[in-house]
Amino acid sequence: MTSTSSVPDTAAAARAFHAQFADISTCGATGGGGITRLCASAADGEARHRFADAAREAGAEILVDAVGNQFALFRLSGIPGAPLVMMGSHLDSQPKAGRFDGTYGVVAAGCIGASLMRARHAGETFAADFCAVNWTGEEGARFRPSLLGSSTYAGSRRIEEALSSRDDAGITLCEALDAIGFLGTDRPPPLPACYLELHVEQGLVLEKAKAAIGLVTRNWGAAKIDVVFTGEQAHTGPTPMPRRRDALLAAAYLIAEVREIAERWPGRFHSSVGRLLVEPNSPNVVPARVELSVELRTADDRLLTEASLMAEAAIAEAASRAGISSTITGRTLRPIRILPEAVCDLVATCAEEASLRSLRMDTVAGHDAISLLGQCPTGIVFVPSVDGVAHNEAELTRPADLEAGLAVGLRAAWRLCRAGGSPERALLFKRPDEASGAVR
Amino acid sequence: MTSTSSVPDTAAAARAFHAQFADISTCGATGGGGITRLCASAADGEARHRFADAAREAGAEILVDAVGNQFALFRLSGIPGAPLVMMGSHLDSQPKAGRFDGTYGVVAAGCIGASLMRARHAGETFAADFCAVNWTGEEGARFRPSLLGSSTYAGSRRIEEALSSRDDAGITLCEALDAIGFLGTDRPPPLPACYLELHVEQGLVLEKAKAAIGLVTRNWGAAKIDVVFTGEQAHTGPTPMPRRRDALLAAAYLIAEVREIAERWPGRFHSSVGRLLVEPNSPNVVPARVELSVELRTADDRLLTEASLMAEAAIAEAASRAGISSTITGRTLRPIRILPEAVCDLVATCAEEASLRSLRMDTVAGHDAISLLGQCPTGIVFVPSVDGVAHNEAELTRPADLEAGLAVGLRAAWRLCRAGGSPERALLFKRPDEASGAVR
Repeated sequence: MTSTSSVPDTAAAARAFHAQFADISTCGATGGGGITRLCASAADGEARHRFADAAREAGAEILVDAVGNQFALFRLSGIPGAPLVMMGSHLDSQPKAGRFDGTYGVVAAGCIGASLMRARHAGETFAADFCAVNWTGEEGARFRPSLLGSSTYAGSRRIEEALSSRDDAGITLCEALDAIGFLGTDRPPPLPACYLELHVEQGLVLEKAKAAIGLVTRNWGAAKIDVVFTGEQAHTGPTPMPRRRDALLAAAYLIAEVREIAERWPGRFHSSVGRLLVEPNSPNVVPARVELSVELRTADDRLLTEASLMAEAAIAEAASRAGISSTITGRTLRPIRILPEAVCDLVATCAEEASLRSLRMDTVAGHDAISLLGQCPTGIVFVPSVDGVAHNEAELTRPADLEAGLAVGLRAAWRLCRAGGSPERALLFKRPDEASGAVR
Repeated sequence: MTSTSSVPDTAAAARAFHAQFADISTCGATGGGGITRLCASAADGEARHRFADAAREAGAEILVDAVGNQFALFRLSGIPGAPLVMMGSHLDSQPKAGRFDGTYGVVAAGCIGASLMRARHAGETFAADFCAVNWTGEEGARFRPSLLGSSTYAGSRRIEEALSSRDDAGITLCEALDAIGFLGTDRPPPLPACYLELHVEQGLVLEKAKAAIGLVTRNWGAAKIDVVFTGEQAHTGPTPMPRRRDALLAAAYLIAEVREIAERWPGRFHSSVGRLLVEPNSPNVVPARVELSVELRTADDRLLTEASLMAEAAIAEAASRAGISSTITGRTLRPIRILPEAVCDLVATCAEEASLRSLRMDTVAGHDAISLLGQCPTGIVFVPSVDGVAHNEAELTRPADLEAGLAVGLRAAWRLCRAGGSPERALLFKRPDEASGAVR
């Protein structure tokens, strides 16, 4: 490592980013300025092609694994079996969602890879390769559970299990990926030396603090309780009220109670019921069956346990009030997770170099990075969301904030690739806009 | 009218009924012993063919009108333009419904027509023709509103309006009827001189009273209030609880309150919410929009008005509690209806002749007969439902009870057709198993 580091051209990266982001935002664009780009839909396929084309043009090799994860490999080191630095997120979206959630991190990673590749061609040397990744099915909107691609890559889910997940029309992920030509056969790259994810905050913390960069130190825990209420199908006309066994009534009691639980710990506890399946869901028929999931989130382990017990009691109570039965068909616990200090320190340093105010903070939502946590040093970098709007067509992050995150990400990736992927060693590297590339 | 009336062969009619009913019950049969025979589905098309084939074989001429109503015309009188006696119901069903609801009345009407036709061939003379009818889309399960075919025939709905009704997949009734070959071009028969509908009770009144025949004197009124709750799509993770605008939460508050309203007037008031559409209905997304209908039923006009006002207040209150907005998109009032005394008297006489205990009673649910009320003398004849089970695969009416209803229907139709369709004149006719056919 004897070359003189050139300044990473953040302006060029920003121009490329905006052009690619605008292009990909047309895939699944909605009338309201957002996107509907459900996992493995035609719109997702189109976005995947555009991401791959841009990365390939920038010199990357594209791999698609068995669950459709797309890896754009930028071979920067020239060393076979060199460590890997990975950045990315997801191109899939919720229905009528914003353009930034996930897509920001994928397009930014691709542009960072392209920048690093240009630097290599200009004579920079790197001790690690770089990979920009688009994870399949992060949202859990069409295929459940969420984080499907990244958790499969990380080894916490079997490929067959992921591929057999079905959407509401009964189509499997396997069939859907095949239909868009993204049921891959490539062996995915090995686990990276470090994984970093740029993402929009989807909350109000950065905006309130007037900070440009969020360094995620903790992920709230989440408990999900899947419930089936079983009543009895009956005519809404002649069936006497005391004989009705209304599954929707029980669901209504529960939904109100789930809200009550959150209101006991203002600011510290979030709860929701976002999805409800009613059978037969016909006018004139007392609902026989309702399926729903209760979601509880907090950063306090004890509280998560306490609230889970309260929710389970509320399920039984709701069923009893409606005179029906309830079954808990699933309990999922995503524990509270701590992100490694070293990655935060590295990103903080990069933000400081770029004269950007950063802040250590929680993420309430899970992101693909969480799937890799424990497998490799992992970081999440937030940029501000205007008014905290998320999972909504009106979601917005201002161009300057997108660029700030991109600049920080580029600096961090540069350092990491120079340092062979280790965040601790990357911290020791001088600013890339100073001369020298040697380890001090 | 000089012929000697022969005894209507109720045993032969019963044998024919059971055979045809068993045959039609295979159309859309479910594993649970019921049927799913949604309006204008393939299963409905199959059932329609079997009904038409049996009626045609018995000498009927089949007409299919512009909204798919099927009329099996038995020309008994030999007189052009003779009055018409009509009986029938519907072959469509709710999802996972019982076999008897609707189908009983259609198959029975067809068998009654066949019996009368045999009597005519045996020398009996009639002053009216007979028509067995299968009305399109009574249930409102696939195409809304309910009573679609009969209300269009009766002139209270335009043909174009009925045909443009769409199912949840966006398919119009017009397209669905065309697909099964039942988008007819025949002019429907003129309004009958009398309409009679055999139907299973779907309640507990006859069973409790140990009566075989219910003479419906009144139809409960129903108020339907269509509501849209509009919240704001947001992430169920980071979005702070006080900022959530959860449309499903408002719906939950309302559903619980709608139940409360009914509980103020035990036995006299029924309420329900049977169908709910949630958008986007995705996990991790705070529901942005919920569409539902509140249904209120009672036989007391004042109470219906009072409860409707309470329900509208509850809608506003639910929206306000959840911090969202509500819009009432439709109000439908089906007023309390009184059925003509003369038709009840005729059926009561026929029941007495057959040594069957009958009872005057209300119907809570609407039936196709209600569409024709006001247009012609109209009657509904109930047979007992085991345990009142309805809109459920386990719905059951015992064979003997089905036969009892059939026998009463046959006697009533016989008298009506002999009397030129007038229920008052039909009452004056002697029992058809006595000699003479002259008006006394």
